[in-house]
Amino acid sequence: MIFEKRVDFFDTDLMQVTHHANYIRWFEIARIEFLRSIGITLDEIMQDGYLFPIRQVEAKFQNPSHFDEILQIEVIPTALTAAKMEFEYKITRKDPDKTRVIVSGKSQNVFTNIQTGKISKLPDKYVSKFKKVFEE
Amino acid sequence: MIFEKRVDFFDTDLMQVTHHANYIRWFEIARIEFLRSIGITLDEIMQDGYLFPIRQVEAKFQNPSHFDEILQIEVIPTALTAAKMEFEYKITRKDPDKTRVIVSGKSQNVFTNIQTGKISKLPDKYVSKFKKVFEE
Amino acid sequence: MIFEKRVDFFDTDLMQVTHHANYIRWFEIARIEFLRSIGITLDEIMQDGYLFPIRQVEAKFQNPSHFDEILQIEVIPTALTAAKMEFEYKITRKDPDKTRVIVSGKSQNVFTNIQTGKISKLPDKYVSKFKKVFEE
Amino acid sequence: MIFEKRVDFFDTDLMQVTHHANYIRWFEIARIEFLRSIGITLDEIMQDGYLFPIRQVEAKFQNPSHFDEILQIEVIPTALTAAKMEFEYKITRKDPDKTRVIVSGKSQNVFTNIQTGKISKLPDKYVSKFKKVFEE
Repeated sequence: MIFEKRVDFFDTDLMQVTHHANYIRWFEIARIEFLRSIGITLDEIMQDGYLFPIRQVEAKFQNPSHFDEILQIEVIPTALTAAKMEFEYKITRKDPDKTRVIVSGKSQNVFTNIQTGKISKLPDKYVSKFKKVFEE
Repeated sequence: MIFEKRVDFFDTDLMQVTHHANYIRWFEIARIEFLRSIGITLDEIMQDGYLFPIRQVEAKFQNPSHFDEILQIEVIPTALTAAKMEFEYKITRKDPDKTRVIVSGKSQNVFTNIQTGKISKLPDKYVSKFKKVFEE
Repeated sequence: MIFEKRVDFFDTDLMQVTHHANYIRWFEIARIEFLRSIGITLDEIMQDGYLFPIRQVEAKFQNPSHFDEILQIEVIPTALTAAKMEFEYKITRKDPDKTRVIVSGKSQNVFTNIQTGKISKLPDKYVSKFKKVFEE
Repeated sequence: MIFEKRVDFFDTDLMQVTHHANYIRWFEIARIEFLRSIGITLDEIMQDGYLFPIRQVEAKFQNPSHFDEILQIEVIPTALTAAKMEFEYKITRKDPDKTRVIVSGKSQNVFTNIQTGKISKLPDKYVSKFKKVFEE
């Protein structure tokens, strides 16, 4: 799945490029959009009594991006189970002449029980949607 | 009360100055530090069942500030009652050769009941601390 | 002109609503989108040797917004001259059942010469585009 | 070197914990403070014609932190050469009863020539300061 994001003015820093911490935020938007595309919202997960803390993130910043550029954020699920979600990300420019990778990365989230804070398995209604992703 | 804040790298934008929305965040730090200085924390207010939504903010951006500069954020309470808090702010550089005002502004917060969301009066233990501020 | 913006996860705070400083950032996105809609980009203004520092912003936070809600940010130019831009903003939810105003506000930017830092008039090619806005 | 940082209100998200992307920003503050402690500022590096883009960051989010908590950000240089800087980070709470690790991570920055954008070696005056760090 590919999600588009324009670099906003406030995303830049004094080096006149996108500040790197923003890409970590955009990874988050991308995985939320991915879940929405398979019929899952974080609101529903929370209403069912679960949270989804992030445990790990990694990013390689390969080329800069700039104000007003439209980026394409590709998000690829690499593991989706009752206990965790893992994704990989690849950010490029939309402009076809500029195909170099801007940022690549990956992340891991776990599911926890909202009351106990402990790692906890998501109900089947979510897991069945996860399974479909890998069957397709 | 004066609160010091260094301009961080990620606070700047491609004009190589502090992005203006950060000053609005620093107004918030300043009022929280002011409350702490008179013995009130937001955690205690929330545990007592109240929230403190902001209703209004205004800022005049008079001069730019830059990466690594240390700013002094002066916060002046102009109204502190059981129902609302109003503050004025004046941000200058710490460096004594640079005394021009960077930003001036003001804000209004109200107190609401955490259950009903409606405007609600804070208990006396807070109001008595507020009164002392204006007696001194 | 109306610009749509979804409330991202990282836009929220522990009160479980959109943190107020984000609206100030979204005012900026809205005015940049407005300029784009009349054929002006900030990159072109900078390449022509001008900056556009913000001088004033005001916001009234009337109702909260929440994670995942789609907001509509209406931006209305109230002054557009060779020397300054003034806008008003009104943010509502897209959801038709929720028509209450979330935030209203206004801002003023001036144009300055990138070399001298002094207030400076934009070239006619911009001013003619500004004039068209008010003629229509 | 240990740098202290209070969790600000706007650093939290609707899970009522610090949003993870902020830790990536605080890694940056920590390495800038480390450089300052050995007599190097980013401003000086830029005035000498060099930039210091980040190439890689990794973080493990082990425990949550909360509004108003004071964190200690330990920054450990693992490589400091004319061509790159590598650091490791460990974030804990200052409160002595709460010694669990909040976040651990690492980063790599390279030095580039401000004109060419290419990787470039820093002058000796910086490298000699780097060497002292590992001699001590």
